[in-house]
Amino acid sequence: MSEVQRIDLNSDLGESYGQWTLGDDDAILALVSSANVACGFHAGSPDVILATVRAAAARGVAVGAHVSYPDLVGFGRRNMDLSHDELMADVIYQIGALQGMAAAAGTRVRYVKPHGALYNTIAHNEQQGRAVIAAIKAVDPSLVLMGLAGSRILSLAAEQGLRTVAEAFADRAYHSDGTLVSRREAGAVLHDPQQVAQRMLHMIRGGGILSVEGEFTALKADSICVHGDSPAAIEMARHTRQLLTAHGIEIAPFTEAV
Amino acid sequence: MSEVQRIDLNSDLGESYGQWTLGDDDAILALVSSANVACGFHAGSPDVILATVRAAAARGVAVGAHVSYPDLVGFGRRNMDLSHDELMADVIYQIGALQGMAAAAGTRVRYVKPHGALYNTIAHNEQQGRAVIAAIKAVDPSLVLMGLAGSRILSLAAEQGLRTVAEAFADRAYHSDGTLVSRREAGAVLHDPQQVAQRMLHMIRGGGILSVEGEFTALKADSICVHGDSPAAIEMARHTRQLLTAHGIEIAPFTEAV
Amino acid sequence: MSEVQRIDLNSDLGESYGQWTLGDDDAILALVSSANVACGFHAGSPDVILATVRAAAARGVAVGAHVSYPDLVGFGRRNMDLSHDELMADVIYQIGALQGMAAAAGTRVRYVKPHGALYNTIAHNEQQGRAVIAAIKAVDPSLVLMGLAGSRILSLAAEQGLRTVAEAFADRAYHSDGTLVSRREAGAVLHDPQQVAQRMLHMIRGGGILSVEGEFTALKADSICVHGDSPAAIEMARHTRQLLTAHGIEIAPFTEAV
Amino acid sequence: MSEVQRIDLNSDLGESYGQWTLGDDDAILALVSSANVACGFHAGSPDVILATVRAAAARGVAVGAHVSYPDLVGFGRRNMDLSHDELMADVIYQIGALQGMAAAAGTRVRYVKPHGALYNTIAHNEQQGRAVIAAIKAVDPSLVLMGLAGSRILSLAAEQGLRTVAEAFADRAYHSDGTLVSRREAGAVLHDPQQVAQRMLHMIRGGGILSVEGEFTALKADSICVHGDSPAAIEMARHTRQLLTAHGIEIAPFTEAV
Repeated sequence: MSEVQRIDLNSDLGESYGQWTLGDDDAILALVSSANVACGFHAGSPDVILATVRAAAARGVAVGAHVSYPDLVGFGRRNMDLSHDELMADVIYQIGALQGMAAAAGTRVRYVKPHGALYNTIAHNEQQGRAVIAAIKAVDPSLVLMGLAGSRILSLAAEQGLRTVAEAFADRAYHSDGTLVSRREAGAVLHDPQQVAQRMLHMIRGGGILSVEGEFTALKADSICVHGDSPAAIEMARHTRQLLTAHGIEIAPFTEAV
Repeated sequence: MSEVQRIDLNSDLGESYGQWTLGDDDAILALVSSANVACGFHAGSPDVILATVRAAAARGVAVGAHVSYPDLVGFGRRNMDLSHDELMADVIYQIGALQGMAAAAGTRVRYVKPHGALYNTIAHNEQQGRAVIAAIKAVDPSLVLMGLAGSRILSLAAEQGLRTVAEAFADRAYHSDGTLVSRREAGAVLHDPQQVAQRMLHMIRGGGILSVEGEFTALKADSICVHGDSPAAIEMARHTRQLLTAHGIEIAPFTEAV
Repeated sequence: MSEVQRIDLNSDLGESYGQWTLGDDDAILALVSSANVACGFHAGSPDVILATVRAAAARGVAVGAHVSYPDLVGFGRRNMDLSHDELMADVIYQIGALQGMAAAAGTRVRYVKPHGALYNTIAHNEQQGRAVIAAIKAVDPSLVLMGLAGSRILSLAAEQGLRTVAEAFADRAYHSDGTLVSRREAGAVLHDPQQVAQRMLHMIRGGGILSVEGEFTALKADSICVHGDSPAAIEMARHTRQLLTAHGIEIAPFTEAV
Repeated sequence: MSEVQRIDLNSDLGESYGQWTLGDDDAILALVSSANVACGFHAGSPDVILATVRAAAARGVAVGAHVSYPDLVGFGRRNMDLSHDELMADVIYQIGALQGMAAAAGTRVRYVKPHGALYNTIAHNEQQGRAVIAAIKAVDPSLVLMGLAGSRILSLAAEQGLRTVAEAFADRAYHSDGTLVSRREAGAVLHDPQQVAQRMLHMIRGGGILSVEGEFTALKADSICVHGDSPAAIEMARHTRQLLTAHGIEIAPFTEAV
């Protein structure tokens, strides 16, 4: 029973950069249990990262490294054809930088979640996936890899001895094979907070969601990704949290359960 | 007696960047006991840093974080007017990144040496000096700060409870008050390997050097900075090492002595 | 009479960067006659610059190059100690990049306004001022330099044969010697739209403003700088424009008058 | 007769960056007629670009914009999945920046040659190819696009009304279908200066080269790409130039012939 009574909520944080602000980190930090903190390659200037990690630590929110391709102007959303060694070094560098920030804030980095294009690419690209896994193991093999529920990267990481956590996206539609509906297709992103919250409750209770093809689709996740980059997104996260807690489901960092 | 029989030799390493190469790291790594490794802000792409830290670890050379202003195009050699919080966060970020690399290479970061304009500025600018000290203490208070022998930053750091190591520059002329002769003045940089090596031997044995004004000037250093960015520089480092070891002085990381 | 019947309103635009948005460019473009467009060194990714220049061209707003130190993370607000040649090359590069964008948008760059720390530094630092002037003359000697009314840089530029335009800051307090009150002092920034608008009308009609010391202070400007980075700033710009036009003063790019 | 008596030699220049040096620009500038100058996105800090353009102008070497993906750490050699609008804006920005530098050096930009991964990608990827073409036409439709002889991008550009110049690679092996042998295959790169020079002479005189499959393969090029990034490369360029001029073939910028 214990798995159905506890879930992690994660969100992307620290995505401001110098003078530029993105997202309402304070609002979303009050709702989630895990913070995917930008590490400077797609977002997150050092002063922003430090403030974010301190705020997360103050609220008892677990800190994860939201590692990215080195593409600030593209916000890490564009595929890049990095070699194994380049990508491995980039990921080690970012994890280390965040670990330094976490130490300064009196906390520590517990997991790694690749960001944007890197996230999508390693879900299926084994060469880049292996580079990310090798980087994590090299820095600290006790770090957990967070990835798309059902994706190849999670089984690959497990084969390599890495702990993993599967995540579901609260506001995204799924196909019957468990893959996400592409953002380019209509209906890929859900907008109704009530529907989204209900859907996540069903996933936790029933072990699956309804696909866009109208079929029950198994979806097992230890963490649910919510967003904080707009008032509507925060409202959706709030609804999800309220509905889950109202049904006795505890919101807590997955890492405590491992 | 033990202080006069052991000295650290340090040099700047990892200053290549992606496709661009700077310095002969292999040659200089064979001569020094401490490596000031670039952390990405003035030089050192992640792949270069990782390779450098691995090479240092393989040779038993101590690794230090060569932290800089965020000025890649200017190689960290231009003064920048950062706020306390900006500079502190920048330094934490760089130390952390190098710590991640060091962990991946099976070693650890032992000290921090500010680079270029930051090095020169904090020798006298207390606001920036305090930001560097605060950063080091926040990440890991056991890290040692390396700075200019006789400079204010070292006493400031000691007041704040940080361990410090004073360094002398093998190829630089000094004034009678212990300050470096500015590079803009003739005779600021020494070029004769024999003279340089003798000078450092005298410093270790006699506790001082001859100033440009022709006076014996007290200079106590635990580490001597040599360079690897030209064949002539490497030759000078080799001469210095040979002369010192020929006189029974052991070349070893200062951190072992602490 | 002609000088009192026409004034330029300028504002900083194109300060978004990739995913990050800053300022309401549409709103402010409807109010000003000249757009200081970021050139990529402190803000302004290429896609943002192109969109900004197109929007300015569509509204008949004059385009100026808002050149900066190379300091994206610091938004160009931190002093940097660049050499003459470095700064000159940086400024040429930015002007050229914006000229390319302007050509693509069917318009052209008419003036250069240094941004942030560079703006403040060259108001008195002759070495950096000369580098900026040399850059402008090298690229296109018909470009106009916009600078602080009464500052040394304007007379220096005029001595060098460059056309200049003096600007006043609508929302800033002045000392009796014509210098700006530092932002660190209370009362440096004015917040009342009515007061600001009246003040600018008085400047145009009366050739001066009231200093913080309570004295009439001569202030002759061909352009008034307003801001678009907050709803309050836009409101202030709107009031200023409305009051001036209500008094028969035409808002038009200074460059048409030259 | 005129086409066989004149050929352009082009090379990549200005690929140093701040403190880092790459290539012997002085040596190669004495041999080529066209300089593909880095524009800051893969290499070429502003001071380096300005010095390069001045040196090219002093020797009467034509200046081209060597535009790249925004990937300094990867030297523009890694594929990036940019949108049409992002790529178009990036290319306009780089061309403009170089035009500014060229104006400052008393010359002008005559052509555009995409660099590295962008060069290879647009040879076949029509979406990115169209973005590059649109950028060139937007800035200055009189600019010439330099590309791989026989590649789709050249015909696409011609369809869009752009002038093009086809280039051959002096030191690369070709397949019988006119494509380059991949660098991953043995024999892809030729190393014998005599062979390379003879091969280029045959191409000019005979309209083709011998493919790796041993067949005569038609290859018509208006420009030959040589390299300056090593003493061996410069030697190869020198041999090629000497052999061609010894046979009465003039080395001159293609743009003069158009």
